[in-house]
Amino acid sequence: MLGRVNHIAIAVPELGPAAALYRDLGASVSAPADLPDHGVRVVFVDLPNTRIELLEPLGDASPIAAFLTRNPKGGIHHVCFEVEDIDDATRRLAALGKRLLGDGTPRIGAHGHPVLFLHPADMLGTLIEIEQPSLA
Amino acid sequence: MLGRVNHIAIAVPELGPAAALYRDLGASVSAPADLPDHGVRVVFVDLPNTRIELLEPLGDASPIAAFLTRNPKGGIHHVCFEVEDIDDATRRLAALGKRLLGDGTPRIGAHGHPVLFLHPADMLGTLIEIEQPSLA
Repeated sequence: MLGRVNHIAIAVPELGPAAALYRDLGASVSAPADLPDHGVRVVFVDLPNTRIELLEPLGDASPIAAFLTRNPKGGIHHVCFEVEDIDDATRRLAALGKRLLGDGTPRIGAHGHPVLFLHPADMLGTLIEIEQPSLA
Repeated sequence: MLGRVNHIAIAVPELGPAAALYRDLGASVSAPADLPDHGVRVVFVDLPNTRIELLEPLGDASPIAAFLTRNPKGGIHHVCFEVEDIDDATRRLAALGKRLLGDGTPRIGAHGHPVLFLHPADMLGTLIEIEQPSLA
């Protein structure tokens, strides 16, 4: 069921210095993009086999604000795995007793693809996102 | 300078249930290996583009014991990036003002290759390992 690691998301207090850090390390870094519906501003760091997603809070109700209060320098916020069929994956995860966040059904994520988040307490203390990268 | 994500390391209190979780999700999971010199017992989860390294403390002075006290259910411990030339990378990181852990020189890591860890406070709150996967 689990496919590629689509991205590793790192929440940061300020995108500018975070993007500069990865640029200084020789990585290709995208321009920032505002995603107001998701409460984040995003930069992608392209690596040969996956991406890092740097996230800065956007707006008053950003879903990463509380995380940054606990981790003021930033930190790894979640890891996203690709799945071929997110509806099938959702059913299998529920059958395994994994708590699905939100209303428990996939929604359209920051990249325009269906995503679902799993409760970190059921996933080794790690917030896990699953994403179906192409529509079935 | 930065190459592939070699692995994402997740520290867990018990390898058995952690390995079973990833097996239940359909991933290929290795047999556990004891690495007494590194104070960890390790299982690898193979994904199409990278690996997850599940780490359980081994022995009384495990380097992940304090992390698990703070994160009793587990959590992402570090991310490892490959570099082509670890001596060159070490010099460049030091020139950028990044603090190198240990004595600041690469040592042979858990996979038999030279590795170096960077101070998380200099790396967006994230413990970063660099590894030279093959000897130059």
